[in-house]
Amino acid sequence: MPREFELIERYFAPLARGFAGAYGLLDDAAVIAPAPGHELVAKTDAIVAGVHFLPDDPPELVARKALRVNLSDLAAKGALPRAYMVDLMLPRTLSEAWIAAFARGLAEDQDEYGVHLIGGDTDSTPGPVTIAVMAFGEVPAGRLLRRGGARAGDTVFVTGTIGDAALGLEVLRGALPDLDTKAAGFLVDRYHLPLPPVTLGPRLPGLASAAIDISDGLVADLGHVCEVSGLAAVVEATRVPLSAAARAVLAASPGRIATVLTGGDDYEILFTAPAHAAAELAELSRALEAPITPIGRMRAAQTGKERVSILDHAGRPLSFDRGGWSHFP
Amino acid sequence: MPREFELIERYFAPLARGFAGAYGLLDDAAVIAPAPGHELVAKTDAIVAGVHFLPDDPPELVARKALRVNLSDLAAKGALPRAYMVDLMLPRTLSEAWIAAFARGLAEDQDEYGVHLIGGDTDSTPGPVTIAVMAFGEVPAGRLLRRGGARAGDTVFVTGTIGDAALGLEVLRGALPDLDTKAAGFLVDRYHLPLPPVTLGPRLPGLASAAIDISDGLVADLGHVCEVSGLAAVVEATRVPLSAAARAVLAASPGRIATVLTGGDDYEILFTAPAHAAAELAELSRALEAPITPIGRMRAAQTGKERVSILDHAGRPLSFDRGGWSHFP
Repeated sequence: MPREFELIERYFAPLARGFAGAYGLLDDAAVIAPAPGHELVAKTDAIVAGVHFLPDDPPELVARKALRVNLSDLAAKGALPRAYMVDLMLPRTLSEAWIAAFARGLAEDQDEYGVHLIGGDTDSTPGPVTIAVMAFGEVPAGRLLRRGGARAGDTVFVTGTIGDAALGLEVLRGALPDLDTKAAGFLVDRYHLPLPPVTLGPRLPGLASAAIDISDGLVADLGHVCEVSGLAAVVEATRVPLSAAARAVLAASPGRIATVLTGGDDYEILFTAPAHAAAELAELSRALEAPITPIGRMRAAQTGKERVSILDHAGRPLSFDRGGWSHFP
Repeated sequence: MPREFELIERYFAPLARGFAGAYGLLDDAAVIAPAPGHELVAKTDAIVAGVHFLPDDPPELVARKALRVNLSDLAAKGALPRAYMVDLMLPRTLSEAWIAAFARGLAEDQDEYGVHLIGGDTDSTPGPVTIAVMAFGEVPAGRLLRRGGARAGDTVFVTGTIGDAALGLEVLRGALPDLDTKAAGFLVDRYHLPLPPVTLGPRLPGLASAAIDISDGLVADLGHVCEVSGLAAVVEATRVPLSAAARAVLAASPGRIATVLTGGDDYEILFTAPAHAAAELAELSRALEAPITPIGRMRAAQTGKERVSILDHAGRPLSFDRGGWSHFP
């Protein structure tokens, strides 16, 4: 493998073109200033081969996923993505072709999301490929969407469709052998490559009262919003938006609703908003051609009760304890 | 080991107190805004057990070194440090005591440097402990000190003393058995715990023309400044500031000057400045009680010649090729 300097010059410096404060990665730090009246939003998330991705996953996809999981958080906080840094810990045995493909993946997503590489670090490791990404966005001052802003009576919304990535992982594990190839391919794609709603997210400040990106699973992440907001929530499972592929899975095995609602890796936005925002949200959804679906509502917490209640088609509560699901007795 | 949420609540959320935009680490991103008229400076550097530190190094020291190598870059760029994020990739077998000690190390340095933890990520890894730090500072808009600003005739300065950390590593390797214990201890301390001049660095914009932190070694880092500035430099080895311990090493084995000048891990600032800044720099050095030493000067590059020339006490050029040193024939 070439030395760090050559790696940077060959593969990473080209990704810094177009961002003045990156100084072509020739300096030791980057300068970034938010637009007037804005604040910077910073987020970091790391992924490890063998834990978050498979060692033989295509490096382009690994790069894009590493970046997108960070852009997802920025979007859910209402921030417009601007730049990112990457620390790469690489085994000495890794081929230069791997790095070249990884950089190509970053380049593709830079075009897709309008962000630039502004810094980073490459090190050797005796362990697995490890990738730490720090993403920078900007938000109008004081307008960051937080977990804790929900109020009782607010509607709970999600963007996109839910459960595709978690079902995609099931496909990769061989757990859905009867699914048709096209649906299986769609779900696997959603597992490999999240589609964070980076255009929609920055439109939510002023409309949403609280927001979070769905990475731990809809039930868990709604639970986080409930906890920090000091509230509870009820969700109608039948209103959770599903892709055609997910609907096909559930038609054959309804029990997979647990995977859909708790599996995670969705990288969509879950947010709450007061009733009077509904019309504007519907208009926004149409304008951006981005699904925004009401799935439930926030309510006061009750001592000794679950924060998040999921109701089935008949209004009966479902329980997702211990990773499975069941009707309450 | 406790789950991520408990680790954050127990060890890391306390480190975020005092920085409003960190939201107690309860949200998924942090907000940071530079002071009016300033820009943010971002830097990231990662360290890996078995590569940058030893697996049984005290976790407090590992934490502080991981943070300080980043603060060093901010200082060398003229930036005032404000905040940082940490991604921790930890083996499942790691004890909670290790994490507690690591967090204590961060807490100590937060007090020392006036910075706050504002975000991060913890993940398990089948590999060695891996720590990625991203540090944020601020600099008056347009005043970042860069590698490329030096001019022919500028004086080359360094802060602090040079070579202590590299000699400390030699002590740890058993290569300096005759050194007295006190001197050996001093050098090892400097290897384990850099002392980046974070107060001095932010005073340099307006005085220095170019700057870099010395991590690769004085010769290599001066070479970086020369290259980006399109110049060459000459350094008088006898003017390079040494600690008493380093002087003791060189008295016994003069050849160790190669280690001093090329060993690296100094985390001091090398900078260039025009002649008219000399008086103000001397005053600054006195006021901060921080050594600033002129060691050479910048000059025009000559085709086919080394960028960096080091002269011995008699004005003869030394060569540090192949990691050793010799007089030119």
